[in-house]
Amino acid sequence: MLTIGVDVGGTKVLGVAIDTEAPATVRAERRVPTPEGGAGLVAAVVGLVTALSAEVGEPAALGVGVPGLVDRGGVLHMGPHLRHLADVALASLLTAGTGLPAAVDNDANCHALAEQAGGAAVGAQEALVVTLGTGIGAGIITGGRLLRGTNGFAGEPGHMIVDPTGPPCPCGKRGCWERFASGTGLGRLAQDAAHGGRLEAAVGLAGGDPDAVRGEHVTAAARAGDADSMAVLGELAHWVALGLANLVNILDPAVIVIGGGLVGAADLLLPEVRVRFAELVMAGDQRPEVPILAAALGERAGAIGAAVLAGDQWVVR
Amino acid sequence: MLTIGVDVGGTKVLGVAIDTEAPATVRAERRVPTPEGGAGLVAAVVGLVTALSAEVGEPAALGVGVPGLVDRGGVLHMGPHLRHLADVALASLLTAGTGLPAAVDNDANCHALAEQAGGAAVGAQEALVVTLGTGIGAGIITGGRLLRGTNGFAGEPGHMIVDPTGPPCPCGKRGCWERFASGTGLGRLAQDAAHGGRLEAAVGLAGGDPDAVRGEHVTAAARAGDADSMAVLGELAHWVALGLANLVNILDPAVIVIGGGLVGAADLLLPEVRVRFAELVMAGDQRPEVPILAAALGERAGAIGAAVLAGDQWVVR
Repeated sequence: MLTIGVDVGGTKVLGVAIDTEAPATVRAERRVPTPEGGAGLVAAVVGLVTALSAEVGEPAALGVGVPGLVDRGGVLHMGPHLRHLADVALASLLTAGTGLPAAVDNDANCHALAEQAGGAAVGAQEALVVTLGTGIGAGIITGGRLLRGTNGFAGEPGHMIVDPTGPPCPCGKRGCWERFASGTGLGRLAQDAAHGGRLEAAVGLAGGDPDAVRGEHVTAAARAGDADSMAVLGELAHWVALGLANLVNILDPAVIVIGGGLVGAADLLLPEVRVRFAELVMAGDQRPEVPILAAALGERAGAIGAAVLAGDQWVVR
Repeated sequence: MLTIGVDVGGTKVLGVAIDTEAPATVRAERRVPTPEGGAGLVAAVVGLVTALSAEVGEPAALGVGVPGLVDRGGVLHMGPHLRHLADVALASLLTAGTGLPAAVDNDANCHALAEQAGGAAVGAQEALVVTLGTGIGAGIITGGRLLRGTNGFAGEPGHMIVDPTGPPCPCGKRGCWERFASGTGLGRLAQDAAHGGRLEAAVGLAGGDPDAVRGEHVTAAARAGDADSMAVLGELAHWVALGLANLVNILDPAVIVIGGGLVGAADLLLPEVRVRFAELVMAGDQRPEVPILAAALGERAGAIGAAVLAGDQWVVR
């Protein structure tokens, strides 16, 4: 079945067309900058559908992934990284705008569908896909299906509190997991180390200004063998592992897939995460090892998963 | 269908017979002290089945709930509160011993099945049942079914780390949720307060010895209006709410049911838990309220749920 999937990000909107029989093969791809507001977003998605349809033919359905809380009727209730968007009935607006059956879900849920359909969790019945980017998202697969919860709001472990005395979070709480284990968390750990006089190599890569040190300087310095930068990544790995262990105690997945921006540092990060995870998970020495893998589908995963979601609308499961 | 359910506790083994059409009505009930070792446990359960069958007639199946990690084949891998029991193939041993189809699961999973079948979560498709006793157990219902995970080990939020600098846990980690939010956690909070010179009323009820203060002294003093004891229960409520908020961010249940020993203080505890939960859950002002209810089936819930589990063995879902 030919479907179109669209991933709405904070800066760009990416659309792909796929055949759901071979979801990892993108048949056409377009992107536009993320507009402001609900009407702008609907227009942008309609434009992508028109352009992609002209290229590959009329699709059977449309799926859209957005960063935020999406209910089971396709209404976006809160999108912290999308300005001027709240309580938008995206699915119905998109059906009206395109004439296609449209499904809308959280972007991390779409990411999980993609990795299950044709990525690192292919065929898994119980899987946990965690995206470590600016924040943390998650898609939970159980019994072969997405765990959506009663409202469609499940899979938000980024705001799991892991240290009640930790740094304040924009959500209003303190010590949420994404304060420590996201790209933002890495930046904070790096700044702390730089201002503590450590991390000279990474500060050098940032032009000598400790305030300018970001995650990419730390990973570049670590890759060049800098011990201070490796130590900061070790701290990040500890926090990633702690949250994953909490989630595995609750969900017992067969596999964990890590996506999002930090997956670019997977070669440095995941070996450390695996060691620390085994120490932090309950009964680590008495349960089968849980593989912790890097996502396979790269930056298109969200859009591919949205296209898979589009195809799933007809599947009675 | 007539089934027998057995709940294995740290001190007693409780067996009930029910008709699965009316699970909340116990037709017969027997109990024996918990024996040591796997052979002793099998013999005790066989004895209960014989006695209950003599009273109500031959059952169609047997279900057993045990505190520990039980795999999908009915093998108990770890029972921290059961001595001399590890890697026991309980389900097959019980089938051999009784001639009945036997299913074995974690006790909190059985508790959840009971509350869903005929208790506070009746009919819920998405529910979270948390037992606050010596430790913390949980049964997660999603899509109307128990979330068991790939090994059958899902639903162990008691070892979710919520404060990495917190008190050490027998599991080897620090700051696990059950260090704060269980009956044991209440005891620790009470001892801390008593040794800090607070909690005079509760210390009085404990015979004047701060080391002897336990949870029941605190709840009794609080019920009599003691402000210090209320404050300790408020602290407990905060930790209960924090873990529940983490779980709701991940699972988005329609209802939360609280069981276990602390449910005896539900009238004092749950109103505080509800207030703090609303502050700690993600987007608390933008999501429908999640009811937090006391379990309805009391100390027989685990056994009733095991009997429900026995009946579910034939239900193709």
